[in-house]
Amino acid sequence: MMIIMKPTATEKEIQAVIERVESAGARAHPSRGEEVTVIGAVGDREHVTRLGLDASPGVERVVPILKPFKLASAQLRHGVRSVLEIAGRRIGGQHFALIAGPCTVESRDQVLATANVVRDGGAAFLRGGAYKPRTSPYSFQGLGQEGLRLLAEAKEETGLPIVTELMDVRDLDAILEVADVIQVGARNMQNYPLLAEIGRCDRPVLIKRGLSSTLEELLMSAEYVLKEGNENVILCERGIRTFETAYRFTLDIMAIPVLKEMTHLPVVVDPSHAAGRRDLVVPLSLAAAAAGADGVMVEVHPQPEAAICDGPQALPADEFPAYVDQVIQAAELAGKELSRV
Amino acid sequence: MMIIMKPTATEKEIQAVIERVESAGARAHPSRGEEVTVIGAVGDREHVTRLGLDASPGVERVVPILKPFKLASAQLRHGVRSVLEIAGRRIGGQHFALIAGPCTVESRDQVLATANVVRDGGAAFLRGGAYKPRTSPYSFQGLGQEGLRLLAEAKEETGLPIVTELMDVRDLDAILEVADVIQVGARNMQNYPLLAEIGRCDRPVLIKRGLSSTLEELLMSAEYVLKEGNENVILCERGIRTFETAYRFTLDIMAIPVLKEMTHLPVVVDPSHAAGRRDLVVPLSLAAAAAGADGVMVEVHPQPEAAICDGPQALPADEFPAYVDQVIQAAELAGKELSRV
Amino acid sequence: MMIIMKPTATEKEIQAVIERVESAGARAHPSRGEEVTVIGAVGDREHVTRLGLDASPGVERVVPILKPFKLASAQLRHGVRSVLEIAGRRIGGQHFALIAGPCTVESRDQVLATANVVRDGGAAFLRGGAYKPRTSPYSFQGLGQEGLRLLAEAKEETGLPIVTELMDVRDLDAILEVADVIQVGARNMQNYPLLAEIGRCDRPVLIKRGLSSTLEELLMSAEYVLKEGNENVILCERGIRTFETAYRFTLDIMAIPVLKEMTHLPVVVDPSHAAGRRDLVVPLSLAAAAAGADGVMVEVHPQPEAAICDGPQALPADEFPAYVDQVIQAAELAGKELSRV
Amino acid sequence: MMIIMKPTATEKEIQAVIERVESAGARAHPSRGEEVTVIGAVGDREHVTRLGLDASPGVERVVPILKPFKLASAQLRHGVRSVLEIAGRRIGGQHFALIAGPCTVESRDQVLATANVVRDGGAAFLRGGAYKPRTSPYSFQGLGQEGLRLLAEAKEETGLPIVTELMDVRDLDAILEVADVIQVGARNMQNYPLLAEIGRCDRPVLIKRGLSSTLEELLMSAEYVLKEGNENVILCERGIRTFETAYRFTLDIMAIPVLKEMTHLPVVVDPSHAAGRRDLVVPLSLAAAAAGADGVMVEVHPQPEAAICDGPQALPADEFPAYVDQVIQAAELAGKELSRV
Repeated sequence: MMIIMKPTATEKEIQAVIERVESAGARAHPSRGEEVTVIGAVGDREHVTRLGLDASPGVERVVPILKPFKLASAQLRHGVRSVLEIAGRRIGGQHFALIAGPCTVESRDQVLATANVVRDGGAAFLRGGAYKPRTSPYSFQGLGQEGLRLLAEAKEETGLPIVTELMDVRDLDAILEVADVIQVGARNMQNYPLLAEIGRCDRPVLIKRGLSSTLEELLMSAEYVLKEGNENVILCERGIRTFETAYRFTLDIMAIPVLKEMTHLPVVVDPSHAAGRRDLVVPLSLAAAAAGADGVMVEVHPQPEAAICDGPQALPADEFPAYVDQVIQAAELAGKELSRV
Repeated sequence: MMIIMKPTATEKEIQAVIERVESAGARAHPSRGEEVTVIGAVGDREHVTRLGLDASPGVERVVPILKPFKLASAQLRHGVRSVLEIAGRRIGGQHFALIAGPCTVESRDQVLATANVVRDGGAAFLRGGAYKPRTSPYSFQGLGQEGLRLLAEAKEETGLPIVTELMDVRDLDAILEVADVIQVGARNMQNYPLLAEIGRCDRPVLIKRGLSSTLEELLMSAEYVLKEGNENVILCERGIRTFETAYRFTLDIMAIPVLKEMTHLPVVVDPSHAAGRRDLVVPLSLAAAAAGADGVMVEVHPQPEAAICDGPQALPADEFPAYVDQVIQAAELAGKELSRV
Repeated sequence: MMIIMKPTATEKEIQAVIERVESAGARAHPSRGEEVTVIGAVGDREHVTRLGLDASPGVERVVPILKPFKLASAQLRHGVRSVLEIAGRRIGGQHFALIAGPCTVESRDQVLATANVVRDGGAAFLRGGAYKPRTSPYSFQGLGQEGLRLLAEAKEETGLPIVTELMDVRDLDAILEVADVIQVGARNMQNYPLLAEIGRCDRPVLIKRGLSSTLEELLMSAEYVLKEGNENVILCERGIRTFETAYRFTLDIMAIPVLKEMTHLPVVVDPSHAAGRRDLVVPLSLAAAAAGADGVMVEVHPQPEAAICDGPQALPADEFPAYVDQVIQAAELAGKELSRV
Repeated sequence: MMIIMKPTATEKEIQAVIERVESAGARAHPSRGEEVTVIGAVGDREHVTRLGLDASPGVERVVPILKPFKLASAQLRHGVRSVLEIAGRRIGGQHFALIAGPCTVESRDQVLATANVVRDGGAAFLRGGAYKPRTSPYSFQGLGQEGLRLLAEAKEETGLPIVTELMDVRDLDAILEVADVIQVGARNMQNYPLLAEIGRCDRPVLIKRGLSSTLEELLMSAEYVLKEGNENVILCERGIRTFETAYRFTLDIMAIPVLKEMTHLPVVVDPSHAAGRRDLVVPLSLAAAAAGADGVMVEVHPQPEAAICDGPQALPADEFPAYVDQVIQAAELAGKELSRV
């Protein structure tokens, strides 16, 4: 940590900072320039942070040097990328995985029809929500247990591993009976009790970036899971909040290469929620794959116009095979190949 | 809901939209202009929304007419403002309440010392966290049950009602034993199972706005509580995420008058978390009170430089009385008086 | 324009709005729902806008129906995309153009060396700044007239048409002597006198999106040029301001497909300024091309570590040919081919 | 400047950075921690910046230590605040100035009527636009020269000094004949040729913050003026772009106390443009004054419903005296008094 003093800081203020740094068991290295003094503090980050030196007299600001995430950091694995193997499918490294399915589980027919289409089209995973976080309490909240049962049936029939969202920590056991990958939605990215509980089981988890979460915060959320011993974390960019009103969210394509530099964990992209519109799903999927994403998570529906939820952003099932062909080519540009069983 | 068709929409596309609106049990009122046709849809909002008409051929966009929140809306009470009475303290309407105390409960001495100072200084409520949402899993996470016990002791000694945060739905019963007001933090603003569970008890709740949540979303979160029967909701502005890096968050002062127009619920402001710096707490508190806030929630610590968490933003306890004097004057400008027992 | 009345609006307030709409020479079409009344106003947009009905008693909000841009709109050309032909190079439609060169013109050797490399590598245009908008008045501001002279020499030697920035309307004549495409930077996107003056000559112009400008505002800036009679406008996405601090700007890849839906004008992407870092330029360029951009504007320098300005984001000249190969493949995925003479 | 190396940086990479720092005439002070090495660079900021060390092998990031603005910095005057005296009115320090008038000069009657009302109500300056930056080229662009003539007449009649906007550097001489304070609008905040030209005359200038400009960038724009010798700069916060759609812009109240810490220059607030709605102007003005603003710039119109431009945000002239009474009280809370002749 570097403590940058104000140009007006007095010698007494500088000494006081040095003493406080040392009181926390850290070493202080002052460096006196012509205009300002900078004090390096070497020691336990948490201890020094607790000193709250930002507010000490004469301090301009405190600049952290080390990244606050450890287990998620790219350095942990010396630059080697993590490849997760889930029910025989690989994701990460050179393996590009398609996660496809309906936004919400609506009915037996809908889930089974979609599952068959996406399996045949090349998807590695079936996605589908039984518990749905909805902005309005008056909106459809998902089929719950019945939805999980239908996902289990689809898995039985198609062999596809299941990705489904956990919203309430009390539903964890029920989710664990069906999910091969537990999804944590953007609104729960900083629900720390939920993350810690998932960390205590060893089921893979896909964590979506919060609408205004920094990449560092996303990695800190992953760290909550990793710290408890669960190493199977996938990160998901799904669009952020900006001033632009022409679309629902702004897909942050730069997150892909930058996350890859910061962490060894796989990074996938959800173009459906970012766009909220079907016609943007193809260009955004191609962009994500070309930029090096480890997968795409896309909504597919046999009859989008009859979907209960988010129909406007679902790809029609019959367009899925052509979609996959294009996305594979974009992923190949980034040196990846489609993950298949 | 108004469905605005594209200038290029065909008569067939227009008819298809009309038929789909009517299939959802709503009435369609087309209005044909020289350049575009607009179709008004009158009927159940949820049913029409589910049609996903945004993605229908020929549709430019769908504009909602009615607000999605009902129980939180100012119209529900015909413009009369809700005044909550909690352990003899009033908040809302002309009653301005100070909620003060440490960020985190650290020790018996710290809590009791602070509680006495803020009670004497004019605070209506004691705030203090036993469970702390921390970005890093390596940071101090609060004293938990022991922290709740200390808050109970402070309440016993000073008579001040307690505001404390609930992070995990499984801790609700423990929190209910101590809290007069349950706090829902910014990170949990869209934790719907938590909100619904709080809605099922009748304890007052203070909901903080998420870092990138719109005012409408904040009201929808209040609606989750209200819908379950709990009418005692307080809203809290605590700073939003913007591009500006000179401060931690940007306090959105406009939220105060605009929320007052949208809802009958009381609106308070947390200047401490927005600023992250003590020297901004006074000007922001004055601004909030002058703009019509129903209260301010402020961090106070007997020895900020020794605080475990967020010391840099805490007011020193001995400056609290002078602070209160200034804030009262600003609140009076907005036609309010300090809430006292 | 639709005027949405408040649920509490009185009949008198509704009548007053109707009368004011008609006083502006427009027709009013009230539509009375159970909860609210909506009044459609058909007539001259500017006249109705001037009424400022948003602030009239009983009005909730005013929703514009028609887009405010006309000459830039996709409808103007019935969905046919504009293809500009500039010094024999095509841009737009299926033609993908590479605009490459140094950020700043520094010296004769630097410009000529770079110009030769990018011409040989497949660039259609040479970019290079003689006038540089710099945040600090103490930073190098460009070589000015001497820079223009060196660009002219590079054009003479390589045959490449020149893209260079105009910052000051008083420099227009000097720029016109050299530039085949006049660049308007992000900071000048809403410099209306500059845009109008460019509109009065017929030289092609490339307008960069402002850091927090909406797509609609970008098109309105294009409209300032088009309105004066200059039809040769290229739009450029170069990254927007968001809360994320891990990169300088956030490249808004969604702007590409959405602009293509809104306008017939060509859309290019500048990945260098968005990223500010060389290692992000390749993935962002591939993403932009795969998402359907009509070109990429990229910084290339013979010795980036010796560049006076923005060296960290420049591609080394010797990596340019390999870069072009990759970008061409991504553009082909989007159905485009490299524009060459 | 501190150069933070990556944990994986080699000794050779560290040496290379040290050599490059020294090649720029600066001194390098390496500080080797257990995990990372940090290199302090002491010397000319511009020279070291040009090295582009962010992109050098082994470098994690570069942290500037000194602020890039000098003449605008609070330190320049050792914490003493600048008080400008303009035509006998003071602004800055303890002097709070009201700048009031119409958005746009529309007619002789309108300007003179408004000027008289605001003079009698306690305004120190008359504002009014003759040249108007409008997003649409189809909107009214101001009366131009005729508008300036009417402002001169209003000044003659009321004695009020004039604040009016300069958009085009070619209009500077015409503006100088009338304006006591030249206004630079938010869209031109980074129009550097315009700023430098204003810097070369000694007329006071009021610079509005750009919609997504940081406070540091605002001060750098002031620096462009100061560097040329014009010391009479006033800064103006007028709302920034955020994700919130409930209002046009988000007034950044925190900018007031933070700018006061950064600079000696006076800081005023424009609540009218931020809000875009009359009913928010009072609470925002009170908030701004209570937070320590040196003035408020507010739109007043004799008949807002008949205004050509921005009528919805104008205060009706007959409400101006009551408005001033309230704002004075809020300014007094911050230790200021109304500036009068």
